[in-house]
Amino acid sequence: MTDIVTAAMIVIGDEILSGRTKDKNIGHLADIMTAIGIDLKEVRIVPDEEDEIVAAVNALRAKYTYVFTTGGIGPTHDDITADSISKAFGVPCEYDPKAYAMMEANYASRSMEFTEARKRMARMPRGADHIANPVSLAPGFRIGNVHVMAGVPSIFQAMLDNVVPTLKTGTKLISVTIECPFGEGTIGGPLGEIQKRHPDTIIGSYPKYLDGTFRTDLVVRARSPKALEAARAEVASMVAGLAEAAKAARPA
Amino acid sequence: MTDIVTAAMIVIGDEILSGRTKDKNIGHLADIMTAIGIDLKEVRIVPDEEDEIVAAVNALRAKYTYVFTTGGIGPTHDDITADSISKAFGVPCEYDPKAYAMMEANYASRSMEFTEARKRMARMPRGADHIANPVSLAPGFRIGNVHVMAGVPSIFQAMLDNVVPTLKTGTKLISVTIECPFGEGTIGGPLGEIQKRHPDTIIGSYPKYLDGTFRTDLVVRARSPKALEAARAEVASMVAGLAEAAKAARPA
Repeated sequence: MTDIVTAAMIVIGDEILSGRTKDKNIGHLADIMTAIGIDLKEVRIVPDEEDEIVAAVNALRAKYTYVFTTGGIGPTHDDITADSISKAFGVPCEYDPKAYAMMEANYASRSMEFTEARKRMARMPRGADHIANPVSLAPGFRIGNVHVMAGVPSIFQAMLDNVVPTLKTGTKLISVTIECPFGEGTIGGPLGEIQKRHPDTIIGSYPKYLDGTFRTDLVVRARSPKALEAARAEVASMVAGLAEAAKAARPA
Repeated sequence: MTDIVTAAMIVIGDEILSGRTKDKNIGHLADIMTAIGIDLKEVRIVPDEEDEIVAAVNALRAKYTYVFTTGGIGPTHDDITADSISKAFGVPCEYDPKAYAMMEANYASRSMEFTEARKRMARMPRGADHIANPVSLAPGFRIGNVHVMAGVPSIFQAMLDNVVPTLKTGTKLISVTIECPFGEGTIGGPLGEIQKRHPDTIIGSYPKYLDGTFRTDLVVRARSPKALEAARAEVASMVAGLAEAAKAARPA
């Protein structure tokens, strides 16, 4: 039986949209989801604006098994993710007693003031669970199927490591890559025919343009090893046939 | 007078969502938009699925001044962008006579077959204008406020260079960065007060976590140099005040 589990990601932050910061979290989440058998189906990058965050959260949490957000959970005025997620779920955003006590004790032990700004990081939607932050303490949180994590890549990655074991996963998409020395214009026709004959696979063609020549990586993906191998064999045989024809056409 | 011109981007491709390919186009578009005075307000990464592409195109073209897409305009079966954009606009997707003739002549001059797959790249929505492709000939296209470009970064960048001079631009957001040796927990409170006093600016706080310590880049953005300088001076003075207080508190 094939189980399909889906996910979407929301990257929150003006700094990504202005180009000031280059996102490093999308590729990491994509890699992890693929590795554990969850299909990442959509990513949205939205600005630090409550209406936009609420709209994206509500659209995506209704459509996919899981939603993951990054960014906007720090202590400054532009960190509005906790408020926005609360609004999306229609619950109050308030100090979480466990997070508040933990952070208060931690700052006290370091003789640092537990400022109003730092207290902001203990706010979350009522009813949310913590996502532990082993790097810098202030937790992320989960409410419903939405997982809210930090934007700083090292903290996001550590939080995600804590989330992964809690997720239901599906049948993994396995894949195989066939390197092809021809451009897509040469292989497009026969490759499309192979895709039609193997509807239980996803055949992708990824051109690389190097030194004025196109080459192609042909990637077959499937949830069943048998389906994968059947399509792979046809793709490999197509590439071998074209290579032989090209060799025969070359003047001696 | 302040003119605001907005944009959204749609990145089309399963390979980005699976993690196989790491996107390099979002950051580039963000940089260019900021440089020319267009506010990139949203990015969506969607799979190679017609319904998803159509929904994203129609949602975003109604909301923003411009939409830019990357990916899915090659010659293989998984390149469905031209069909999807046509469907979004409710017009036929057909061979563009100018593109067809140009490509036919080019392949003939290189003694290469103008295969059915290659002919696919001459298809576009009826009524679309070309976006020239100086790298590998097959053009992108513009229909309405939607600009459809290649996913291969070198080709995307070359196409975008051809698009930029055709765009209406707004009053640029100018910015200044103040480096701050304190974490967000220390500066969050006073920074929020400064933001409140300067509503015509956008003050962002970007934490960096290095060697176990948080530092922060404080970025003030505004469309007016005067507003920018007023807020910048207050932020700089706040940071200087905190540094002095920290020095005074240190044991002699």
